[in-house]
Amino acid sequence: MKAAVLTQLHAFPVVQAWPDPVPAESEVVVRLSHAALNRRDYWITRGLYPGIRLPVVLGSDGVGVVEKTGSAVADPWHNGRVLINPGLFWGDDPRVQSRRFEVLGLPRDGTFAERVVAPAENIYPAPAHLSDEEAAALPLAGVTAYRALFTRGELQPHDRVLITGIGGGVATMVLQLALPSGAEIWVTSSSEEKIARAVEMGARGGFLYTEKGWYKQALKHTGGFSLIIDSGGGRSLADAVEAADFAGRIVIFGGTQGPVEGLLPARIFWKQLDLRGSTMGSPADFEAMLAWVTQHRIRPVVDSVFSLDEVEKAFDRIAGKAHMGKIVLSIS
Amino acid sequence: MKAAVLTQLHAFPVVQAWPDPVPAESEVVVRLSHAALNRRDYWITRGLYPGIRLPVVLGSDGVGVVEKTGSAVADPWHNGRVLINPGLFWGDDPRVQSRRFEVLGLPRDGTFAERVVAPAENIYPAPAHLSDEEAAALPLAGVTAYRALFTRGELQPHDRVLITGIGGGVATMVLQLALPSGAEIWVTSSSEEKIARAVEMGARGGFLYTEKGWYKQALKHTGGFSLIIDSGGGRSLADAVEAADFAGRIVIFGGTQGPVEGLLPARIFWKQLDLRGSTMGSPADFEAMLAWVTQHRIRPVVDSVFSLDEVEKAFDRIAGKAHMGKIVLSIS
Repeated sequence: MKAAVLTQLHAFPVVQAWPDPVPAESEVVVRLSHAALNRRDYWITRGLYPGIRLPVVLGSDGVGVVEKTGSAVADPWHNGRVLINPGLFWGDDPRVQSRRFEVLGLPRDGTFAERVVAPAENIYPAPAHLSDEEAAALPLAGVTAYRALFTRGELQPHDRVLITGIGGGVATMVLQLALPSGAEIWVTSSSEEKIARAVEMGARGGFLYTEKGWYKQALKHTGGFSLIIDSGGGRSLADAVEAADFAGRIVIFGGTQGPVEGLLPARIFWKQLDLRGSTMGSPADFEAMLAWVTQHRIRPVVDSVFSLDEVEKAFDRIAGKAHMGKIVLSIS
Repeated sequence: MKAAVLTQLHAFPVVQAWPDPVPAESEVVVRLSHAALNRRDYWITRGLYPGIRLPVVLGSDGVGVVEKTGSAVADPWHNGRVLINPGLFWGDDPRVQSRRFEVLGLPRDGTFAERVVAPAENIYPAPAHLSDEEAAALPLAGVTAYRALFTRGELQPHDRVLITGIGGGVATMVLQLALPSGAEIWVTSSSEEKIARAVEMGARGGFLYTEKGWYKQALKHTGGFSLIIDSGGGRSLADAVEAADFAGRIVIFGGTQGPVEGLLPARIFWKQLDLRGSTMGSPADFEAMLAWVTQHRIRPVVDSVFSLDEVEKAFDRIAGKAHMGKIVLSIS
């Protein structure tokens, strides 16, 4: 088959011939129509991820049709369109993944290929209201956003929510998942355009985090946020702590700006804040995400679509950070 | 009356004559036999506290007898020994103090005096098993430790607990409150002597946080902590995050080492950690603390006792950080 293979670090994957995957007894092979990029894929190409092995087929998100099943797998998918929960071997504890947990697309070969093998328990029917591109864009961002917002963030309709760094795939998905709850949503970005886009989508307003002390303005306008979803780390987390209302919750699902800077413990304890780490999601989170997306007819924002042969352009786009929403690969 | 009055910053309080306090209608005057120092008192003398006004009588902790009551106060204390909940005007929300909240001893005059005035609702009978010195040592450290450990930390008997910076009044009280739960308790300190003392008291063991990478040893010995109570901030919080087990809770009640340093967001989200700020406690926390202390016959560790006239020596002792437990003032 054809696959986009990462053979060396500090380079992008290259399309080449690759062995067809063979399912073990509890696995299936999915023939993919579309895949989607995540920032994780980019970090891996930069060597900034634990446990990198080369060569590897990257890619955590994919949609397609089950083509082959292992001997122990009943096939309930009836040749229908499926997507893959990219969190493998979560385990039994809803609070935290097991030590066996891994994300599809490293160390196992992922979805930037014509076919991928995955455990049968990770295969779900794709929501019918989504196009193939949208379905491919959903799994990793959807489950990460859902867990951050609902399971860890405990979103309530009366919350005033801030999503920092709108534009990335997960942050945009957080916005989309939060809107139907009726909560009041605000965003931050370094880009006026992305804020304007978020407001079009339904956000109440936004703040340029590049303006020093933006949180003072935010506090003045809003009175502070009861729930903040942050993936910035760096200076972003300290700013989030300033922008939080008393007894607020801050969910941390990323750290694109690196180590936390300028965070004052007194702000955390005096305001009685909760800071909660969240990554990926359990099978229950994934199923609840699919149900919420289906119920509210949520359609992931697709930034752009490239063919598998254009995989380098897709990586250029995610590296540039100008995108809003998901970058999709069309495979067949 | 006689009081230890702070008249200027970067100096210690000076004993002088001071007007006798007069109770408003819902207040009482307590004639104090003993008071106790808290690190807060020291921070205030260094100018490191918001809203300082001078001159002021410092002191949040005291034990004594109700001598005078406001017109709206029924006196249920029958001339018995009382102590004061130093958290005034918490309000109705158990999650967080109201904007009116203040701590006795700034801006209101506190307990380093022969008499103090306080709201009647903050007066409680002192547990009978405590000496006057121990009773004076209990309130602020007790309620802060109780809320951090139980209300915010949700201590369970199966927890493996780490208390960082053992020796301070609150950290020592956290150890004492935690021991009867049956949980396994570990400590950190910069002093072998303090670790040895904590082990005598019932801790399983300890680690010198001055040794770089101590948390690796801790992880190897224990497998990681499900609950960490930290008041260090600075490098201490990042180390705590390393030492935490997956799905662990870290309660932050102080930041003696200043702004957080070297904290990696990825550690927080990958381990699905909870970081929870906690300060002081609600009236319900205070009452539950008194009940727990009474039930388990817990006696606060008294480091040393000075007379009110020796107040400068008492401040020297808290400034030096060699103490283990509470520094008490004997007043009458």
